[in-house]
Amino acid sequence: MNKKKAELCNVSSFPGGAHAVNADVQSGAIAPHEFSMRPVVEIDRYLLKWLLKAMGAPPVRFLLWNGEEVSGGMDPCVARVFIADRAALLRLIANPDLHFGDLYESGRVRVEGDLVEFLECVYHASAAVPPRGLAQRLISRTRPARPNTLTGSRSNIHRHYDIGNDFYRLWLDEQMVYTCAYFASPGATLEQAQVAKMDHVCRKLRLHPGERVVEAGCGWGSLARHMARHYGVKIRAYNISHEQIVYARERAKAEGLEGLVEYVEDDYRNISGEFDAFVSVGMLEHVGVEHYQELGDVIHQCLKVGGRGLIHSIGRNRPKPMNAWIEKRIFPGAYPATLAEMMQIFEPSEFSVLDVENLRLHYARTLEHWLWRFEKASDRVMAMFDVSFVRAWRLYLAGSIAAFRVGDMQLFQILFASRDNNDVPWTRNHLYTATERTES
Amino acid sequence: MNKKKAELCNVSSFPGGAHAVNADVQSGAIAPHEFSMRPVVEIDRYLLKWLLKAMGAPPVRFLLWNGEEVSGGMDPCVARVFIADRAALLRLIANPDLHFGDLYESGRVRVEGDLVEFLECVYHASAAVPPRGLAQRLISRTRPARPNTLTGSRSNIHRHYDIGNDFYRLWLDEQMVYTCAYFASPGATLEQAQVAKMDHVCRKLRLHPGERVVEAGCGWGSLARHMARHYGVKIRAYNISHEQIVYARERAKAEGLEGLVEYVEDDYRNISGEFDAFVSVGMLEHVGVEHYQELGDVIHQCLKVGGRGLIHSIGRNRPKPMNAWIEKRIFPGAYPATLAEMMQIFEPSEFSVLDVENLRLHYARTLEHWLWRFEKASDRVMAMFDVSFVRAWRLYLAGSIAAFRVGDMQLFQILFASRDNNDVPWTRNHLYTATERTES
Repeated sequence: MNKKKAELCNVSSFPGGAHAVNADVQSGAIAPHEFSMRPVVEIDRYLLKWLLKAMGAPPVRFLLWNGEEVSGGMDPCVARVFIADRAALLRLIANPDLHFGDLYESGRVRVEGDLVEFLECVYHASAAVPPRGLAQRLISRTRPARPNTLTGSRSNIHRHYDIGNDFYRLWLDEQMVYTCAYFASPGATLEQAQVAKMDHVCRKLRLHPGERVVEAGCGWGSLARHMARHYGVKIRAYNISHEQIVYARERAKAEGLEGLVEYVEDDYRNISGEFDAFVSVGMLEHVGVEHYQELGDVIHQCLKVGGRGLIHSIGRNRPKPMNAWIEKRIFPGAYPATLAEMMQIFEPSEFSVLDVENLRLHYARTLEHWLWRFEKASDRVMAMFDVSFVRAWRLYLAGSIAAFRVGDMQLFQILFASRDNNDVPWTRNHLYTATERTES
Repeated sequence: MNKKKAELCNVSSFPGGAHAVNADVQSGAIAPHEFSMRPVVEIDRYLLKWLLKAMGAPPVRFLLWNGEEVSGGMDPCVARVFIADRAALLRLIANPDLHFGDLYESGRVRVEGDLVEFLECVYHASAAVPPRGLAQRLISRTRPARPNTLTGSRSNIHRHYDIGNDFYRLWLDEQMVYTCAYFASPGATLEQAQVAKMDHVCRKLRLHPGERVVEAGCGWGSLARHMARHYGVKIRAYNISHEQIVYARERAKAEGLEGLVEYVEDDYRNISGEFDAFVSVGMLEHVGVEHYQELGDVIHQCLKVGGRGLIHSIGRNRPKPMNAWIEKRIFPGAYPATLAEMMQIFEPSEFSVLDVENLRLHYARTLEHWLWRFEKASDRVMAMFDVSFVRAWRLYLAGSIAAFRVGDMQLFQILFASRDNNDVPWTRNHLYTATERTES
């Protein structure tokens, strides 16, 4: 048991991990001819030492444009951060949460060493710094998240999910599932783990053939097709990403599932109909806490008496804004909420929370697979976009691995039911024994 | 599967259920010679009809002191509530949540019919009434809960748990476990279900031989002894009920477990030492939300790096004060919190919530067992106390069954760990397969 666990938790045992993160080392190693003649002055060193202290003194060193190293004296050193010029240094000092990403993307800041390991030790060190200290407040300044009104959501979602199905196809699994997988067994492939996740969700919901399910935020439609094919239910699946809906419809048609799955290009706030079950996997991050009660009302209105539902979402241990660069560059309008915040969905309609499962390490593992595949396809990504895009997405994937590994982010699956629903299983044994698939 | 579930959920299939609740019918049926000659006037009828409406029109009838019936016209009628005099009627109208219990206890209000079924349909009907309506606010007035300061807690706990071990021995299981059991298999006895609950808690905590565990609120000490005997851990268990501590110490000595279990007669706020795991089963109800952060600090301070813990507590779907009569008569200072409120324990120290399980129906079943045993022993309870005590405890047990059945109360088991604890199992499969007991 312990051996199995160690194997699973141990980062270096992941077949793709080392390769993936080494890619940055290979492209990012600093050669002496890259150093410039511009001098480093005392204030540069002072500012960097202040930054290291504010970050909780992680075991990293800075390598300045003239080849000079600045360190906080922590050894062994996990990585070196190359800063190409003084302007980059000043931007980094002014708002590291935001500008580290910007500068990394443009190549004016580079990381020599394992990128994931570097980010992990930085996150780990800063977690130990009192969050309300002046230094932390200065280095963790946030941007106001872009609003998730009906129009705002469309724009926010468009900017991430509509950048091209061909791009996502390069590094997602064959079913195009872009949410945390479930590694039920240690040696599972990404493909197997995504199917296992879909089954885990379906078993938690205890779907019966002929039931009607509504899905909010269906991505490329994999879960809806899986439910229809294996559990014999009828699904109406909502999404405001045009590219994803087009793909989902085509694929359902090609697989002969049109009669069971209906993809609707619309906002969750416009869900209509009456359903036995509600499901949402990886949408809540884009809803915004100020809309949670609205989401709860939608769920309450569309569920039949005795209905049940499941929400799967990234979360936090305590309230904290999204990293400023991620919000700006990768996920506009996104916010990972705490469990307490998520309860605003359930409390007004008195839903009973039946089961919460935290799959944090599964998301780290999922992201390791994605990053590995992404790096393998980086030349093709480069051809589709440009080098700064590759660097930005590398940082986003690597940073997410690190955040899940150090416990900065969580992944919650919340199963709930109407207050008066007594048709609930007495134990969760059914999740871990025979399959409940109908194979219809 | 469906058959098994139906059997489990169906109230009438419980062997003791019918007997237990019939006891009240047998002792409570109203004979014609009990009616008085005092007249009923129009205002009496009007007030009762208003009350029925405010209660959401449950299918019950009132039987007034002169033998006259007042009903809301709902059929079939589940039970008749006998009101012995006008003063009782006026008190019932003035504050039913508080005075129904008082009047039931004194016999001036009696229920003819199945007491649990009566309460269940009343709770069910009132749940459908808008909680902020005038009528609901009038009939659900609450008392301020008695404070849980160090002194207040001692007094509150003393009033419930120190009323005599001999009394509790009459209707609890052999191990004296006074918290929700876990009916892992449908035909389990109360004794088996309490052992299964203790194992379920221990497996969630993944106890290893030699580890140190601290328990807050240990009751009669059953869980601590179980952990020591079957999981080979060392436990320091806290409780401020003197009677319970005396019993727990004697029993541990008799069972040769003194070297592994230390019972401390003190408040959870005074916990000292360093431990691998924290556990608290059925204490949080007595802590008070205003002390949750204090409890979280205590847990944070006493847990080693990488520690984990479990809190098992009655809860709610949304914030709602304890029933006024229960707070006054049975559980002074008690409050069942929502999950969101409970997060005040975990957020400040950034504990990761790993698993939440709702065992609501298990508590209804546990209480059915207790009520059945209580009724079997009611003559002996009467001899120990008096008839009003028997009636009060009958109402408390029956009311609790009803509250768990209709979803007015929940039972949450929350497993948590330090934010940076990556030594967590990948799935919950281990809870449902081979035992992890060491049988040391």
